[in-house]
Amino acid sequence: MSLIVQKFGGSSVRDAQRIKGVAAIIAETYLGGNDVIVVLSAQGDTTDDLLAKAEEINDHPSKREMDMLLSAGEQVSVALCAMALESMGLPCVSLTAWQVGIHTNSVHREARIKNIDSERIRMELDQHRIVLVAGFQGIDRKGDITTLGRGGSDTSAVALAAAFRADLCQIYTDVDGIYTTDPRIVPNARKLKEISYDEMLELASQGAQVLHNRSVELAKKFRVDLEVLSSLERKPGTKVKEVTKVEKTNIAGVAKDVTLARVALVGLQHNPGVAFQVFDLLGKHGINVDIILQSIGREDTKDISFTIHRKDLEECEHILNEHKETLKFDHIETDSGIGKVSVVGVGLMNNCGVAAKMFEALYEAGINIQMINTSEIRVSVLLDEEDVNLAVRAIHAKFFDEV
Amino acid sequence: MSLIVQKFGGSSVRDAQRIKGVAAIIAETYLGGNDVIVVLSAQGDTTDDLLAKAEEINDHPSKREMDMLLSAGEQVSVALCAMALESMGLPCVSLTAWQVGIHTNSVHREARIKNIDSERIRMELDQHRIVLVAGFQGIDRKGDITTLGRGGSDTSAVALAAAFRADLCQIYTDVDGIYTTDPRIVPNARKLKEISYDEMLELASQGAQVLHNRSVELAKKFRVDLEVLSSLERKPGTKVKEVTKVEKTNIAGVAKDVTLARVALVGLQHNPGVAFQVFDLLGKHGINVDIILQSIGREDTKDISFTIHRKDLEECEHILNEHKETLKFDHIETDSGIGKVSVVGVGLMNNCGVAAKMFEALYEAGINIQMINTSEIRVSVLLDEEDVNLAVRAIHAKFFDEV
Repeated sequence: MSLIVQKFGGSSVRDAQRIKGVAAIIAETYLGGNDVIVVLSAQGDTTDDLLAKAEEINDHPSKREMDMLLSAGEQVSVALCAMALESMGLPCVSLTAWQVGIHTNSVHREARIKNIDSERIRMELDQHRIVLVAGFQGIDRKGDITTLGRGGSDTSAVALAAAFRADLCQIYTDVDGIYTTDPRIVPNARKLKEISYDEMLELASQGAQVLHNRSVELAKKFRVDLEVLSSLERKPGTKVKEVTKVEKTNIAGVAKDVTLARVALVGLQHNPGVAFQVFDLLGKHGINVDIILQSIGREDTKDISFTIHRKDLEECEHILNEHKETLKFDHIETDSGIGKVSVVGVGLMNNCGVAAKMFEALYEAGINIQMINTSEIRVSVLLDEEDVNLAVRAIHAKFFDEV
Repeated sequence: MSLIVQKFGGSSVRDAQRIKGVAAIIAETYLGGNDVIVVLSAQGDTTDDLLAKAEEINDHPSKREMDMLLSAGEQVSVALCAMALESMGLPCVSLTAWQVGIHTNSVHREARIKNIDSERIRMELDQHRIVLVAGFQGIDRKGDITTLGRGGSDTSAVALAAAFRADLCQIYTDVDGIYTTDPRIVPNARKLKEISYDEMLELASQGAQVLHNRSVELAKKFRVDLEVLSSLERKPGTKVKEVTKVEKTNIAGVAKDVTLARVALVGLQHNPGVAFQVFDLLGKHGINVDIILQSIGREDTKDISFTIHRKDLEECEHILNEHKETLKFDHIETDSGIGKVSVVGVGLMNNCGVAAKMFEALYEAGINIQMINTSEIRVSVLLDEEDVNLAVRAIHAKFFDEV
């Protein structure tokens, strides 16, 4: 007998019909002789409805009260799903985060899980009940409700799988697995049977939106075997785990990101500490910097280029101009029309051919590369935004069609 | 400085506008230098929406899961109301029943409060915060969420007022107080400045729908001063307390009830124990009997008439017919077209004139009385349903207009 954690997101439980479908998946797992812990998000529209209600009343409510409000959503989901299982005659019990004892720090709306009590869930599993846990939420030391922020329910599921040493943590979504690239751009993208944690992390941060990095990091830390699969079609998904089989091609996928803007500080003094000053300043204002590139400019000056999220562009320009005197640069150039395309694969940097093959594909497609950035398992290029989809297709074809 | 508990029902918090109105009332109380504990129900439509969602999934969900589902509603209300107070710059905190520690037995959907922890609320009051408590809910010993059933939020408010020895428990509703009778039937009905617990209990059980009996009983037990007032108009309501001033007329009001049916068992054997058998049988099936009247029939038989709620009529007939052999009656007569009109007042039975005056009013109005029933502080008559409003007007006029 195995212990399986199954997580279903907001669209998987958005109405009675979908909840019954979810119940059928859970029932099959339970009747197959497994212990089952289910983690649910709030129903599709519930969170939006609650946010709209809050907005009507207060533009800037406290985060504590937002957590109090929003956490009601998952409570509704677990109760409804329990009712669906009850109607099938299956023993089950729904639990909120405080009933389980999912303890977090006190950072409302972005809380981190500290530990999970085992008593209540263990007791319910011992009585052969399916346990339905409200995702996305926890309680702090004071007994106040917290929420976990983006990717919160995935994180709840992985944390429960770690705490109870589950044999598998299944993340049910609207897609049926992890693909070599976005199938909407490349119709013959291939579904991966498995992928390593590190590759998944690079794919996720490079724009693949299936699993939030936070949950993958947690899974990696506690060696939780993940599986991403569809709640609509009953077929195998993609397993995310420590070691993957060596496959013929050593790249796992091609990812894109079109949420970036590029900023260049032109004519900086060529002194030590200049880069530190720039990025320390931006960090203090909560602006995350992605790719950084430094080049020698004219007459003993240098230029620093970097990418940030587009939403931060205006603030970034404002901050830098405010400190123009101190930072001593000539002027700022910005470009909000850029995109990034990456290939990801374990051992990729040990294979010089990969980067070359990627650049060849771009050359053949006539696409100009603005910046290049690499990590142990990733090669990224910065392009004009309008070239991104063409680049993804060209690179994907080069790596996967020629095999 | 006083401690005041204020309870607002579902229609008082049904939308952003009303919530802001509620916040204004709370703010005034708090800024007047009082400690304030607020108890809120779920928003007007929320409970109905949640019930509809449940129904789509399961016709007979467990009561435990219904409580899990429904209790989310009050959680939303307290969070939204806290946000409204925050936008006014007032310190406040919303709490669910489990955060307060409102402990109940485990009878889901009709739980009874056992005790209330004082720690958390006391801590918040000490920090001069307005405390908003989710009404209608509690937790049992296992840590499961329970709900209190009909009149639940009123009961939460009175229980909190008792636990914290509040100086006053204000119940805000859609009406502005307790009237001598229903103002929709008798336009010149008078609002009472005060009424005793016992009178309120009789008025409530006789069909006045402002306060649920359960909360009045609790208020009486712990000597909690209640005030019923409107959340829409700022004017004094009706105080419900132990001792009322002796007023000129000794009746507090006229109540009506048109939810009754009358059942008569005709031709029962005139043996001891027959009445016991009949009402024991109905009690075991959960059928509440109101007025009972026994009369001698023909030839050593007797008839027993009684009233029940109309919704129970079919089941009642079915049960009695099933036991016709044992109970040995001739036949059953039923009438679902009856109504009850009552006058209520402390000391009423010590004043023979009251019953006579009531019967006189009915005689003058040409209304036939089917049954009469009295208690220490009440005289009730059973009438044709169509005579009920006429009777209320005639009796009210006799007692209040002639003063």
